[in-house]
Amino acid sequence: MLPSVGVVLTGSSSRTLLPVLRTAGFEIGAVWGPTKQQAQELAQELNVAFYTSKIDELLLREDVDLVCILCPPYLRAEVAVKALSIGKHVLCEAPAGICGDEGERMVAAAQYYPKLLSLMKHELRHLPAYVKMKQLIVEGFCGELRICECKVELGTLLGQHYDWLCDHNMGGGVLTNYGCHIIDLMSFLTNKRALEVNGTLKTFVAETAYIPQFRHITADDFCAFQMKLANDIFCTVTLNTHIPGRYSQVVTVVGSKARLSVRNDRLFAAKHGFDEEEIFLHDYRKDSLRMKARAKDSPDMYLTGTKAWVSAIKRAFEESVDKEDRRSADLQAIQSAASFDDGM
Amino acid sequence: MLPSVGVVLTGSSSRTLLPVLRTAGFEIGAVWGPTKQQAQELAQELNVAFYTSKIDELLLREDVDLVCILCPPYLRAEVAVKALSIGKHVLCEAPAGICGDEGERMVAAAQYYPKLLSLMKHELRHLPAYVKMKQLIVEGFCGELRICECKVELGTLLGQHYDWLCDHNMGGGVLTNYGCHIIDLMSFLTNKRALEVNGTLKTFVAETAYIPQFRHITADDFCAFQMKLANDIFCTVTLNTHIPGRYSQVVTVVGSKARLSVRNDRLFAAKHGFDEEEIFLHDYRKDSLRMKARAKDSPDMYLTGTKAWVSAIKRAFEESVDKEDRRSADLQAIQSAASFDDGM
Repeated sequence: MLPSVGVVLTGSSSRTLLPVLRTAGFEIGAVWGPTKQQAQELAQELNVAFYTSKIDELLLREDVDLVCILCPPYLRAEVAVKALSIGKHVLCEAPAGICGDEGERMVAAAQYYPKLLSLMKHELRHLPAYVKMKQLIVEGFCGELRICECKVELGTLLGQHYDWLCDHNMGGGVLTNYGCHIIDLMSFLTNKRALEVNGTLKTFVAETAYIPQFRHITADDFCAFQMKLANDIFCTVTLNTHIPGRYSQVVTVVGSKARLSVRNDRLFAAKHGFDEEEIFLHDYRKDSLRMKARAKDSPDMYLTGTKAWVSAIKRAFEESVDKEDRRSADLQAIQSAASFDDGM
Repeated sequence: MLPSVGVVLTGSSSRTLLPVLRTAGFEIGAVWGPTKQQAQELAQELNVAFYTSKIDELLLREDVDLVCILCPPYLRAEVAVKALSIGKHVLCEAPAGICGDEGERMVAAAQYYPKLLSLMKHELRHLPAYVKMKQLIVEGFCGELRICECKVELGTLLGQHYDWLCDHNMGGGVLTNYGCHIIDLMSFLTNKRALEVNGTLKTFVAETAYIPQFRHITADDFCAFQMKLANDIFCTVTLNTHIPGRYSQVVTVVGSKARLSVRNDRLFAAKHGFDEEEIFLHDYRKDSLRMKARAKDSPDMYLTGTKAWVSAIKRAFEESVDKEDRRSADLQAIQSAASFDDGM
């Protein structure tokens, strides 16, 4: 039996998760929105019977076993901690816990209720190209790891209205919304944590045609940082939202023997001194076309990762509860991500 | 009449300049080497009549009008200042003036003798793809410049013996030997100087099969840095010598309207929201094949740039002396490069 899902949702971000959950067999039983009217509109759009603007009404419902937190970053930690304390499983959009000790409180809550699933939505870990990349790294294909490079290029994150995406403190900006996935990926691939971070956030566009200057945009639209990981692995990351009409993500790992590179969803490998060749291409294109109508907010690779992630969650519920303990360890990723973000 | 050239030379670096100078019609009249024997060997190899291990003997010769400084970085400034004070034109391999106030002394000497040619060998400025890129930037193709990204990938700089390339203080390392050209290029393309710099140097390989550990390698083999230029232009640079068998150099400029990218010697352009297209390909391949035997130390694009640079120098001598004043301004590039290097 799969648990019934309650959704905490605002705006249009991250909605791609919901059709994926439904396709996998999860039922969505309740939805929260910031106002009664918004909640009602969301419920109609998602075809959900129960809606509310009071978070407790959603969390206390007996037909809600799993809470899916897709609201803006600055609200996520509070809802996550509350949901766990009421005994609900939690899936939380990353990042969360962006202010003060919220991250630590989330981790503490997750550890206090180890039987409850408490997962951050870092779906790129589940993308087949990265799974294969990690396997090759573990098998020693690269030799001793030295350098990780990552470059993400996309268009602006800002919409047609002033909202949390414009505001750095509310969790807007390219570091918070894309950087967190990249940082998680680096720690997943290398199995190492960041020791030191050093970087720069820039806001080149402080007003747009839609957002007048009196509502000042503070969210970063460009970010470059370096991380030193344990074992003297050095990471350099560039996140650039000034390339309209493109989503390009390149992650390259250079070791003493060879290098591996994932460009969007394709994995390339080269032993030093030899030409590069494509060694892994996951063919999900047919599949993703079907989802395209709903997936327009999210690049294909995130959708593919989300599906693999949801499949893993489904298996966790279908199989024994022992699995859950291991899975809840994933939540610790948020701790480094959050403290890292503060460090910037 | 082209001036006769005296060459200050050690080791094998930068020798590609000499055949280019000869092809252009310059005569090489004298050569300096660090020991009498080395000087003799160099003279034989280069087919030059006069050789010496005493720098003054070269500088004071009446048949030497132009001094070409190709020795290791830590010796360059002293020779350059001396040569100018004796009344010789100077072409100096970049960078120079890496210690203390040497850079300032070079600039001062150049300004004190404005009739003398005093040029740094920053040949990438002269590569047709970059000349065209700069022209497009000046014409406003990119709109307001925001971001410059540069990534250089190549194999190790170290040879089979311990020499200055292993030693950071003697001018070894990828920042000093490649970074200086990239920094010059950024300031050439944007016409702006660096205001702030922030970065990291790494030495991943501290010993090789050829160089035992008791001679410790201190030169950086990886470097990542960010520069803030005037007008809020942000540059990010990665120099990576862990990719054996490759020389790849990508410089991308992103503005408010469009982006331009030079990959090795090819220029690509894209208006935001449109696909990228190649707009400039300089066909020098035939030409470069002829030079290949001698050019093995230097990537093709540096050779192409060197030829264009030497042609410009030749014109400067063939035409009026008025040209020389303008050209000597190029030397100022060394000042920011040197102080920047110290800043790291």
